[in-house]
Amino acid sequence: MTRAALIQQIKIKKSFLCIGLDTDLAKIPAHLLDDEDPIFSFNKAIIEATEDLCVAYKPNIAFYECYGVKGWKSLQKTWEVIPKNCLSIADAKRGDIGNTSTRYAKAFFDEDVSGLGFDALTIAPYMGHDSVIPFLDIPNKWSIVLALTSNPGSRDFQNFTNASGVELFEYVLDKVKAWGTPENTMFVVGATRGEGFLSVRKHVPDYFLLVPGVGAQGGSLQEVCKYGMNKECGLLVNSTRGIIYASDGKDFAERAREEALKLQKEMQVELERAEIILAQ
Amino acid sequence: MTRAALIQQIKIKKSFLCIGLDTDLAKIPAHLLDDEDPIFSFNKAIIEATEDLCVAYKPNIAFYECYGVKGWKSLQKTWEVIPKNCLSIADAKRGDIGNTSTRYAKAFFDEDVSGLGFDALTIAPYMGHDSVIPFLDIPNKWSIVLALTSNPGSRDFQNFTNASGVELFEYVLDKVKAWGTPENTMFVVGATRGEGFLSVRKHVPDYFLLVPGVGAQGGSLQEVCKYGMNKECGLLVNSTRGIIYASDGKDFAERAREEALKLQKEMQVELERAEIILAQ
Repeated sequence: MTRAALIQQIKIKKSFLCIGLDTDLAKIPAHLLDDEDPIFSFNKAIIEATEDLCVAYKPNIAFYECYGVKGWKSLQKTWEVIPKNCLSIADAKRGDIGNTSTRYAKAFFDEDVSGLGFDALTIAPYMGHDSVIPFLDIPNKWSIVLALTSNPGSRDFQNFTNASGVELFEYVLDKVKAWGTPENTMFVVGATRGEGFLSVRKHVPDYFLLVPGVGAQGGSLQEVCKYGMNKECGLLVNSTRGIIYASDGKDFAERAREEALKLQKEMQVELERAEIILAQ
Repeated sequence: MTRAALIQQIKIKKSFLCIGLDTDLAKIPAHLLDDEDPIFSFNKAIIEATEDLCVAYKPNIAFYECYGVKGWKSLQKTWEVIPKNCLSIADAKRGDIGNTSTRYAKAFFDEDVSGLGFDALTIAPYMGHDSVIPFLDIPNKWSIVLALTSNPGSRDFQNFTNASGVELFEYVLDKVKAWGTPENTMFVVGATRGEGFLSVRKHVPDYFLLVPGVGAQGGSLQEVCKYGMNKECGLLVNSTRGIIYASDGKDFAERAREEALKLQKEMQVELERAEIILAQ
């Protein structure tokens, strides 16, 4: 999906919501556990109930990989039912030396080789340019590079500061933006790091940001938009637990839709306020 | 495998060799391609030909993951044939927020859940303590955290330096050693960064280091040992391409053994020089 197509979807759906698919057998409704592939049954129902309200789905690969071969089958089936008008993001945090990153790119981007053809992949930058560039080299795919994450440990290294006062996450933004373009690169910036958005936008005013941490992790959508939104939106705000685990009963998909709708309405207000869409 | 058991194996085998299993269908002998699972056939033959000469095997997970479900089957079968007296290392460079790292730990360490029960996993530290500690919490398993890697891009961020002259990789060593112990934590230090070993050993004198980059990437075993060996060896030196692709003919396993034997003999000299084993 191109940047222009993504922006078009945001305007059509009046939403920049990404729904995380961190699908956990211990949390999904009990009645699904007798299905042949409960994880896939759950994801399919969630997707069908919410696809008009969000512009992206983000399976968290660890939640599939932990079941080995079986989990990869669930992941493949899930990827196949993500609608083509939604950005499909493999949240995998991969990154390794060049010839190995090339393989990870095949794993998530090359359907003919791996059975998976995600639009985007999250990438860990610690190993530097030859660990990131192989992903950027794949046409029509997105690399979403970790910058400032939403977790408590993000402060351990991401705020490590050089003698000029530049923090590591800022240095990552500056380096990586020179390797990619706003057409193929995004950055992960956690909603729990509200104060960080001003600084992030100084470095990458035009890039899309994938923003986890709204909801269960405590981040505020309004604060994210105040400091992080640009004139083309430039945000994909992820919510997972608040949507997919809104109910553990038979009404789980309906309740997920209700929660997604609440967020979509809040997002519409923000898009109207920023004059990205016309107020109705 | 405990640290004591690993050191015992190093002394018995007179070797601290780790063999990388970056198994590539384009490089393995053509006669294997008709097998049901050529990757597994290749790995099994390599392991059987070399298991008395090395103390660890390290499948590079990207080379399996790129084939999706099928690749995970090859990985599982490969893990099953790694002898119990060798450390099995999943080279996966994982790391994510706490509840997700817990899932990755299950994926590679918990045979009952995933079908894989590796002894060790490589970990990317960018996301900080809650991304690393879930791996350290699993008893009798090793976390091998990236510090100073062997690739050209390693200089991009790992040498980022604070106002006191501390480089990021040194800061990572200091932080991570406070989370783990020499009994459950190792660090990745590339052989191509010879000058870095002195600095690494100032920060982590007692920890084992996993050292890629000898051979094809240009690192020198002698230099690694001169600056990196400690009184219990403290090194696992990896070689991949020089061993597993020594021949692409029917003699590939024999030729792999010959190359592994050369390295084992060089390692024996180093172990004798350091008086870790008696000279014969």
